[in-house]
Amino acid sequence: MRRRVKVAGCFFVLVLFAGHVAVGAGVPTSENTEACLDCHRSLNPGIVANWKKGRMAKVTPRVAKSMILKKRRVSFETLPDDLAGVVVGCAECHTMNPEKHQDTFEHNGYQVHSVVSPQDCAVCHPVELQQYSKNIMYEAYGNLKNNRVYHGLADSVNGIQTFEEMKTTYTGPDAATEADSCFYCHGTVVEVKGTETRDTADGPMSFPILSGWPNHGVGRINPDGSKGSCGACHTRHRFSIQMARKPATCSECHKGPDVPAYKVYMVSKHGNIYASLGKEWDYKAVPWTVGEDFTAPTCATCHVSLVVSPGGEVVAERTHQMNNRLPWRIFGLIYAHPHPKSADTTVIKNSAGLPLPTELTGEPVEAYLIDEVEQQKRRKGMSKICLTCHSGQWVDGHFSRYENTIQTTNEMTLTATKILLAAWDKGAAKGLAEKDGIFNEAIEKKWVEQWLFYANSTRYSSAMAGADYGVFANGRWYMSKNIQEMADWLDCKLTKNK
Amino acid sequence: MRRRVKVAGCFFVLVLFAGHVAVGAGVPTSENTEACLDCHRSLNPGIVANWKKGRMAKVTPRVAKSMILKKRRVSFETLPDDLAGVVVGCAECHTMNPEKHQDTFEHNGYQVHSVVSPQDCAVCHPVELQQYSKNIMYEAYGNLKNNRVYHGLADSVNGIQTFEEMKTTYTGPDAATEADSCFYCHGTVVEVKGTETRDTADGPMSFPILSGWPNHGVGRINPDGSKGSCGACHTRHRFSIQMARKPATCSECHKGPDVPAYKVYMVSKHGNIYASLGKEWDYKAVPWTVGEDFTAPTCATCHVSLVVSPGGEVVAERTHQMNNRLPWRIFGLIYAHPHPKSADTTVIKNSAGLPLPTELTGEPVEAYLIDEVEQQKRRKGMSKICLTCHSGQWVDGHFSRYENTIQTTNEMTLTATKILLAAWDKGAAKGLAEKDGIFNEAIEKKWVEQWLFYANSTRYSSAMAGADYGVFANGRWYMSKNIQEMADWLDCKLTKNK
Amino acid sequence: MRRRVKVAGCFFVLVLFAGHVAVGAGVPTSENTEACLDCHRSLNPGIVANWKKGRMAKVTPRVAKSMILKKRRVSFETLPDDLAGVVVGCAECHTMNPEKHQDTFEHNGYQVHSVVSPQDCAVCHPVELQQYSKNIMYEAYGNLKNNRVYHGLADSVNGIQTFEEMKTTYTGPDAATEADSCFYCHGTVVEVKGTETRDTADGPMSFPILSGWPNHGVGRINPDGSKGSCGACHTRHRFSIQMARKPATCSECHKGPDVPAYKVYMVSKHGNIYASLGKEWDYKAVPWTVGEDFTAPTCATCHVSLVVSPGGEVVAERTHQMNNRLPWRIFGLIYAHPHPKSADTTVIKNSAGLPLPTELTGEPVEAYLIDEVEQQKRRKGMSKICLTCHSGQWVDGHFSRYENTIQTTNEMTLTATKILLAAWDKGAAKGLAEKDGIFNEAIEKKWVEQWLFYANSTRYSSAMAGADYGVFANGRWYMSKNIQEMADWLDCKLTKNK
Repeated sequence: MRRRVKVAGCFFVLVLFAGHVAVGAGVPTSENTEACLDCHRSLNPGIVANWKKGRMAKVTPRVAKSMILKKRRVSFETLPDDLAGVVVGCAECHTMNPEKHQDTFEHNGYQVHSVVSPQDCAVCHPVELQQYSKNIMYEAYGNLKNNRVYHGLADSVNGIQTFEEMKTTYTGPDAATEADSCFYCHGTVVEVKGTETRDTADGPMSFPILSGWPNHGVGRINPDGSKGSCGACHTRHRFSIQMARKPATCSECHKGPDVPAYKVYMVSKHGNIYASLGKEWDYKAVPWTVGEDFTAPTCATCHVSLVVSPGGEVVAERTHQMNNRLPWRIFGLIYAHPHPKSADTTVIKNSAGLPLPTELTGEPVEAYLIDEVEQQKRRKGMSKICLTCHSGQWVDGHFSRYENTIQTTNEMTLTATKILLAAWDKGAAKGLAEKDGIFNEAIEKKWVEQWLFYANSTRYSSAMAGADYGVFANGRWYMSKNIQEMADWLDCKLTKNK
Repeated sequence: MRRRVKVAGCFFVLVLFAGHVAVGAGVPTSENTEACLDCHRSLNPGIVANWKKGRMAKVTPRVAKSMILKKRRVSFETLPDDLAGVVVGCAECHTMNPEKHQDTFEHNGYQVHSVVSPQDCAVCHPVELQQYSKNIMYEAYGNLKNNRVYHGLADSVNGIQTFEEMKTTYTGPDAATEADSCFYCHGTVVEVKGTETRDTADGPMSFPILSGWPNHGVGRINPDGSKGSCGACHTRHRFSIQMARKPATCSECHKGPDVPAYKVYMVSKHGNIYASLGKEWDYKAVPWTVGEDFTAPTCATCHVSLVVSPGGEVVAERTHQMNNRLPWRIFGLIYAHPHPKSADTTVIKNSAGLPLPTELTGEPVEAYLIDEVEQQKRRKGMSKICLTCHSGQWVDGHFSRYENTIQTTNEMTLTATKILLAAWDKGAAKGLAEKDGIFNEAIEKKWVEQWLFYANSTRYSSAMAGADYGVFANGRWYMSKNIQEMADWLDCKLTKNK
Repeated sequence: MRRRVKVAGCFFVLVLFAGHVAVGAGVPTSENTEACLDCHRSLNPGIVANWKKGRMAKVTPRVAKSMILKKRRVSFETLPDDLAGVVVGCAECHTMNPEKHQDTFEHNGYQVHSVVSPQDCAVCHPVELQQYSKNIMYEAYGNLKNNRVYHGLADSVNGIQTFEEMKTTYTGPDAATEADSCFYCHGTVVEVKGTETRDTADGPMSFPILSGWPNHGVGRINPDGSKGSCGACHTRHRFSIQMARKPATCSECHKGPDVPAYKVYMVSKHGNIYASLGKEWDYKAVPWTVGEDFTAPTCATCHVSLVVSPGGEVVAERTHQMNNRLPWRIFGLIYAHPHPKSADTTVIKNSAGLPLPTELTGEPVEAYLIDEVEQQKRRKGMSKICLTCHSGQWVDGHFSRYENTIQTTNEMTLTATKILLAAWDKGAAKGLAEKDGIFNEAIEKKWVEQWLFYANSTRYSSAMAGADYGVFANGRWYMSKNIQEMADWLDCKLTKNK
């Protein structure tokens, strides 16, 4: 296939061969982007260099759309000619939708905004945004900030404690701490708070003052009213699919004991293979062919990418919803439970009126959760990927063991909860009845670790077959020990108080 | 060297050059394997793709044996012609020794088994299995399951605890949990428990129901009565020596705080070099030449591989026993001690009648342990590898420091044991005298951490010169703190009970 | 450029092209080094192989100096002809400055020393040593050994504890343990303690007995009176700049919870990019060009290397002082504070007479610390690197958040300190007033963790934007929990003692 494109007054030829793009001496860059590059090439050489290495700097949307469907990385229907025919450069993103952006400012004659949002990306990738809006990550800000239980937990972590007259007191966290902590990953609220003049290489210039900036959290609230940040995974300014498919990218937010996906993956056989042989794989191929492009899954294989067999059969459709193949929600909550129906989990209420998907004693609040039919469907979708390298027996055995672990870890959390309830009941600690925080005392923090760290890590290690992490590293050993320590503490307190 | 092989009715030429095998357009694959591939190529494309990338799919046993001794990767004496002349494909392993396999089933006219065992592999690799049978890993299942002390520890970790009437109670773990926890690495018992019909792409088919499946633990009890799983390190279905030689493979079971070999290695200078420069190395060469193929050791260099100098002198013989160069056993037990003589450690009894290689107060039970002469021999074997890159002074200094650390960590464990014994004696906890479990109470769990995590991690960090891990990460800091916390707890309990 | 060099009686031609050195069939190796190689080639093939792969074995100092300034890796002014014209081999280092080396010994007619020191390296690299002497690492031995507070901490970690008559007792650590623990990284004292005869491949030979050997700690006290070990980062015997620039090298000493730089880096976006795309980078280029040679910083980029823009503008000068761009010292001490003026921190005294850069309640001891002007200068130096890939807004927002975190973590440490002071005051523990150790009791160890692990890790995660580590992995969660546990413990003790 050959097509002629006008670039800065000259013609050149772009040759497409087997899905790879060979770029000629020039690329059809817009005049606006050239204007950006004139200064920023020397002001921020790293940005420009990264961008140039990426596909966005080499392929125009028109060419991207001309691929056969399976190889296509864009999902727009139509695009104005001025965008379709040039590569996606500085101006294409940073001057997109100027009227929607509260952060738009005049900059050398251009209407520029700093915070490129999913809404901007959706000009070429609307299907991906539509899928992502069903991803819990899309609501990561509100699900934490607007749920009084979770937000109470966050405050107990990020707030300042003082010690006066033999007593500790909590003060709520400041915004900078929140942005440096939970909301680094969940996303901040980025709003324009005024205008400031900054000294630049070209003299004083005016810029909007942004709250919560910098941030690239998955549920960021953007100055154009949209949610999320594609750059969380598709690292700016190269936006490399290769990087999004590598586990290190996920590890930015999924490595700690509350959500140890990366650590579990790395001790699983899948992670071992990736670490040992992954350098031979092709992380750029679209679609992604099992056995040819890679020989063990990364995070993206099971949760996101369009995966096909060597014969071309679709094994898994591309999805940015990511929970399509997840029957269970296993982390972040007190008990594991069927996945919530709505990405916005603040709508959930349990029988005690708390915004939780289970009762305090573990029973799921079914109205807000997917049913067994949907769970089966999701399990089957995931199994289809497993079956490319494993027998049906193997896969069924794996999932049966995993669901048993969901059950037993929930039981171990219930035991910890019962000890906590006894502590509240006997007056050894203050809880819901006293309208006291449920995350502020020492015994309550041990209870939190039971589910947020240990039960959760045990489930992850089962789900992804990384047993080493779930036994002594951060799993069953600590679940068992923690219960003994909680009971020991309660016994000690009650004897003392006699 | 040239040889002609008949393949599917045509002739082709296999050229061997400098130990590397160039495969022609076809490979001599058996008709039985071709029959497997006919369906499974599309059913499990990942399995087939992995296999095709491996040496087993490219080299016949006859060619493998024709190598000069040092380059040889097989150890059989003779092999029937029908096996010797074809590559090792699906049928060669999954229909091997059908009469020995309890899990053999009829599958499209073939007698197939799912669980390929070391006994199957030993058809071509008998010496490796014979060595491996002296490896403690070979007995990993029984050493845990059939030793009442260790098994008590495992039960306290994997069992369910409940809390009723202000008391905790333990219930023994179910089999699925055990398989998901300790026995994931130690190996499960894989037995046929009946037959089931499964829906497949070719309609309903009959398969044996297997207990403990999936599993690739190092001490797996197989349906043919054999022990172990070569696939634990030689990951199916590529069986790549390159992967077995990379540390990530060992990390699947040797990363947790009970056996942190991988973590210590990665902060050692050896691990630093591997991480920084290891991508340049040749992990496939047999024999493995110091300085040429690699410039710092991986796990396999010191513990398994055939290592030679650039001049061709053997630095270390290949061994799958792995303890040949280990004077001490430093992990998993209460005290470090000379290596046990027998891989089956259930034969050991101490003076209290417990199946432990030391007394509860640390004295080694000499009758079951290697003597100083054997220790010296093993130390010398290991030193020979060190000396390829270090002076004699360096090496001796290293080992002397290491053996001092074995001594001091044992002393710190003894101190913790004395506190526990006092707790039992004073009635602050229930122990052996009360015939109570010794791993179930909070103070007992702290005692376990003293040796299983902290003393052990400190020794690992000394043995492999990864000091960072042994100071604050999981070593001396915690040994010291844990003793104070145990003593503090005991003091508190006794004051309270007064 | 072409030059002729006489090598072992023949002439050959060395061609330099674009800063890369193409070595001909031979290299101009000194006769002395050839004599070393004659035996050690087979005795220690790994050493020789490593050396041969390095630049030192390929480029003579004269050629190295002939580079244009920016590409130059040596900083000497003049060098004797016998050194300038040969590559840097065994003899050039191990027989350098023989009269200064207490460890010089006669070895086959040569005056050899084992311990090559920075003073030896400085023959060609004097500027680097001069910079390094202002690095706190240069004083790492004395700053720990000769500061009674820190050394008390080290003793409490490395000493042996016993338990007799219901009481624990500390005994100071032996030298082997110290060398295996803190001083592995800080550096040992390497001194000649006598002479010994060792069996070698060439029969019995005489060698000096060295204390504290092996060691390559950054503040090692060498037998020639100098300090440090260049090999800590420039791993012998290849001395590869590529390795020094990779984060794994820093991880040898900067991974534990007391100084988790590596762990934070790996969950930062910078570390994610390095892990995912870093294999494409050029780690050998001097100078190091942003965007071309690498697209995200490693440790060396921000702290050490000569970094330039694609246009050739210097972004950061090479420095081995490493604190040039660090306004704050955030780890190892009770409170974060402006960086000390002197690398030797034993000169510092606070108002209580303790060798600490802050009071026990956090106020900085200003006389010994850099002032706000110097802090601004250092912040600006660091920002210049950030700005190559980030906007001014982004960078300022980052630093403002970081300095807020310094403030809040100091507050949380102060709270823990107040609880400890109350414990001392109320007699629940023994402290300064009782002239008791301040690191030996359980409550004191919890206090240490507050700053040494948790506050510190939280600051690191803020400084390097690796939030995941600073929330639940080892940061804010534990700061908050630890305060509750300390207060709970104190409350319990005081009630009990009533």
